[in-house]
This record gives sequence, structure tokens and C-alpha cells, in this order.
Amino acid sequence: MFFEGPEKKLEIQLAPSSLLDLRQLDPTFWETRVREAGALILSRISNEAVDAYLLSESSLFVYPKRVIMITCGRTHLATAARAMIDAWGEAIELLVYERKNEHFPEYQPSGFLDDARELAELLPARAWRFGSADGHRIQMLTSVRPHEAPADDRTLEILMHGIHPDAARMFGSHRGATTSPRKRAFDHLLNGFRVDAHHFEPTGYSMNAIDGPRYLTVHITPEEIASYVSFETNLDFGVDPKPWVERVRAVFEPQALDVLTFSKSAPAAFALDEHLTVGWAEEELDCGYHVAFRHFERRRDRADPAFELPLQPKL
Amino acid sequence: MFFEGPEKKLEIQLAPSSLLDLRQLDPTFWETRVREAGALILSRISNEAVDAYLLSESSLFVYPKRVIMITCGRTHLATAARAMIDAWGEAIELLVYERKNEHFPEYQPSGFLDDARELAELLPARAWRFGSADGHRIQMLTSVRPHEAPADDRTLEILMHGIHPDAARMFGSHRGATTSPRKRAFDHLLNGFRVDAHHFEPTGYSMNAIDGPRYLTVHITPEEIASYVSFETNLDFGVDPKPWVERVRAVFEPQALDVLTFSKSAPAAFALDEHLTVGWAEEELDCGYHVAFRHFERRRDRADPAFELPLQPKL
Repeated sequence: MFFEGPEKKLEIQLAPSSLLDLRQLDPTFWETRVREAGALILSRISNEAVDAYLLSESSLFVYPKRVIMITCGRTHLATAARAMIDAWGEAIELLVYERKNEHFPEYQPSGFLDDARELAELLPARAWRFGSADGHRIQMLTSVRPHEAPADDRTLEILMHGIHPDAARMFGSHRGATTSPRKRAFDHLLNGFRVDAHHFEPTGYSMNAIDGPRYLTVHITPEEIASYVSFETNLDFGVDPKPWVERVRAVFEPQALDVLTFSKSAPAAFALDEHLTVGWAEEELDCGYHVAFRHFERRRDRADPAFELPLQPKL
Repeated sequence: MFFEGPEKKLEIQLAPSSLLDLRQLDPTFWETRVREAGALILSRISNEAVDAYLLSESSLFVYPKRVIMITCGRTHLATAARAMIDAWGEAIELLVYERKNEHFPEYQPSGFLDDARELAELLPARAWRFGSADGHRIQMLTSVRPHEAPADDRTLEILMHGIHPDAARMFGSHRGATTSPRKRAFDHLLNGFRVDAHHFEPTGYSMNAIDGPRYLTVHITPEEIASYVSFETNLDFGVDPKPWVERVRAVFEPQALDVLTFSKSAPAAFALDEHLTVGWAEEELDCGYHVAFRHFERRRDRADPAFELPLQPKL
């Protein structure tokens, strides 16, 4: 009846001097971490730089010294994070654990602060909220160990709510239209990437794409009750994320979206053409990244009906 | 360290033909209901129409055929609601059970849908969400028994987040300035009302005010991490709630606010002078009321810093 699209995300980077190569770990290591989080590995694509796993709940990217794990639904990513901290200890130079505000937090196995406290017992870290207590927000635990981000090391997250019904239909099933302008605009985002995509039954869509060390991942929850799409990439967007945000926004036409960037220095300030900026927070973190959060809403010119909630939701 | 200001609210109306008079119930009845919800009665004022109880977590208003109970923090109002349904059964003509989106839902003893399912087993009801799944919203269970609201039966809720630091200071302690223009504007709202107010230690403020059958209640959570003020009244605001909303808004100058009205027919559409309308939902409900929800945000012209969250919050 509904699915919790908003994700948890873990990123760990090892010290360059570490002798560990995460791609050389036994495959069962990753299977176990994924299972601990409450997900399963569906498929994998690889190139010279990265292994990209598609999960039953989102994605896992493994580099020699870096891992990015994203899980949605009712997963418990903090358990997998704890196991990684236990395994790699002092070799960890950076850890970021993020949670987006959920639609139905009452169905989550834990809250952000529960997770943050659990992980902060294992390594020195600080907890942050980007955005407001009462609205769109991303909460984040970040390590305080020394780490310097390279200038081209950027991450862009575009987190979209209330997508256009045509976009929801397009990704809602295998039989969605495949030649619409919207679909072409989506495919155009993936130019040059090797793609691994999965349609879920009865609905839902996940995709990993890689090109050398660059990844791009999209997860779509089309359900009307709380539709949601996440788009994330480490493509080098330069100082101005706006062109990428506008391209992705045009495909999904969300009612609301959050944009989160990680970069060595502050990105350009930007506004969107069809949305209002209603939340905005930036911080230079101990972990070596400048983190910038923006929350946008489309202006409404008419009332929506109230949404009738199912009293017996299927989870 | 933080306190959950956003409230749960229960309203029950008995059939006019019922022989029950709720004001004649033994005082232990109300003490027990309040305790079941996880709160305590602090004080009471009465007049010919109503008994107004100030609670350790918000308020209770008892009329001969109507009860309004509002609780905040980590209370479990549904337990008290269940006991009232058990006690009055078929005499109940209307039930509305509301929950505002919380700041820290992970610390709540239950979620809205848990409560709604529990109560819907006891009387025929439907569940609604006003506002978006991803942002400001009020979720509501409403009975489907026949009920016709009188034309002057109106309720106005003004729910404010991120209040002005001067307003937070003013209500944060006994020693707040008492003669500022802001305080005078607040006092002016209460003209002609009999007032029962309580300052909490170390911070927080609650107030009931009554004038004949009219009530007005204000609850203030000044903590910086998630400041919140609720203002609610059954004063007959006519068809246009805007003048009252602007008066209350001017006292607290919130970053964001929700306005919810119950009335027999649709109120006038309105916008605010200093806020953007970002959410808007209306519905004619089976329970005899037109319910209109609006969510407003103040435009931001600069980034906020990220908020450092305490890893060991005191609840």
C-alpha cells in the first residue's frame, strides 16, 4: 500500500595508506553487510574502478578505499555500518551516515538519533540536522577524523517528492511508455554510462549506472500515497549544481525536492525556475566536506483534497 | 534538551438527546483519562458553560455534551480516547482524533496509524492526511456517524514552528519582559477572557482562557532545537480566518505555520502577508465539518548553519 522511499546512506573512506582493498574482500562480506541491513543483492556490474550492486532496497558501490551504501524501506543500515567500523577500525578516515526525513517514521526500526548514538560509540563523530525540525531535513552523523577531500570529489543528491503522475506511470511497470520526451530526457542523463536497472513487482524501479569511477543511481517509489525518487551521482558538477538539478527535475516534475551536495568548497548558490526555496542550510564539516542543503517546494494555486489513508496498510 | 511540542487532539461530541452530562461526571473520571494519556491535571477554571483544565501536557475542555483534549510531548492520547468510547458508546455523535507531524516521531509511543486503527475498531471512522506525506501535515481520524455542525461552530488551530527568539525568550521564563509591544499584542488577544496560565520549569508556557462557551488555549515550547507554539480557539472567526491568523502570527513570527479550520461550510481562501503558501488541502468530511488546512513558510534569503544535534538528548 505504501513503501518508504526516503533513504539511509552510509559512506566510508579508508586512509590512502591503508593496506585494505575493499574490492578484494570475500563476496560473502558484502552479502552479509547487505543482509544485516535487511536487504538482498539483486545484481552487480563492475568496471576497472568500482563494483556497483543493485539491492532489493537501493544500492551499494564498492571502490578499493571507499564504500557507499544506500538503503530505503524499513532497512537498518546502522547495523551494517557498525560491522564495517568493527572490521576496519582505525583505517577509516571518513564516515558519513545520513537519514532523510521519512514519510512514515513510525514504521522504522530505529530513529536517526538511535543510529547516531550507536555509531558514535565506535568512532568520534558529530550529529547534524540540515533543514528544519518540522519539515524537510537530512540528519547526518559525520566523523571528526582528519580528512581532506580532493577538489573534484563531489556528490550530488536530488531527493524528490510527489512526482508527476506521468513519471510515476512511466516507472511504475515494465509496460510504461518508452519513447516519450520524458523517457528520452531520462535516458539522456545516462549517456555514456553502463546501466543496471530493475523493475520491481508490483511497482518500483532501481538503477545503477557507472562510467569509470563515476556512478549515478536512481530509485523510484511511484506509489501515490507518498511517491519519491532519489537521484545521486558523484559526477563532477563543477561549482554549480543547478544544470543537473534542472535536468533531473524536468524528468520527474516533483512537488517538492531536496538537493544535498558534498564538495571541498562551497558550491554556487542557486534557485530553481519553478520552485520556491523554503529551506537552506550549509556547513563546513570536520570531515573535510562543505555540505549544502536546499529544500524547494512548488507553489500551489489550488487546494488538494485530503488524502484518505488506508487503515490496514500493507507494508 | 528538547520537548515535542506538536500535539495530539481528541474531540468528542455526544448526541443532544443523550442523557449524559459530562460536567457531572465524578472528578476521578477526568483524572483517570488524563493519567491514561500520560499527563496530570495542574489546575482548573470554570464558568457556566465549560470546565477548562490545564494539564502538564496541554489542555482539557469539558462541556455538557462535548470534550476537547489536547496533549503534547510523549503522551498517548489514544488510550484516553479508547476509554471514552468504551464509556459513552452509541451516545457519541462525533469523534475527531488528530495528530500533527512531530519533530522527533521516533520518540513517540505510537504512530498516527497505530492510534487510528485502535480507535477505528471501536467506532466507524475514516483516516485522512491533510498536507503532504513529506512535509507539514495533520493526520486525522473522523467518525462517520451523522452529525450536523451549527453555523457558528468553528475551530481555528494555528500551529507555529521556529518562533522569533524574542518570543521564545518572553515565554521561556517568569522573568521574560512583560511590557514589550509583543507582550501587549499577546495580552490583547485575551481581552475579555478569564485566564489560567502556567510557566513550566526550566521553560515552557501553557494557557487556557474562557469566556462563556468560547475557549482559547496557547502552548509554547521555546527550546531552540525545535521551538513550537500552538494557538487554538472556538471563537467565531466568521468566514475569514486571516485576521486572527495575522494577529497571532505577529506575536510569534514563526518560520513556518499550519492553519487548520473546522466549520460547517468552507472558509474564505486566504494568503499571508509575509509567508508563502506551500501546502493546501480541504475536504468536506462525513462528520459534518468542512476541514481546511494550509501550510505557510517564510521565504529564506540566506543559509542557516546546520544544527548540531545532541547525541545524548534529555527527554
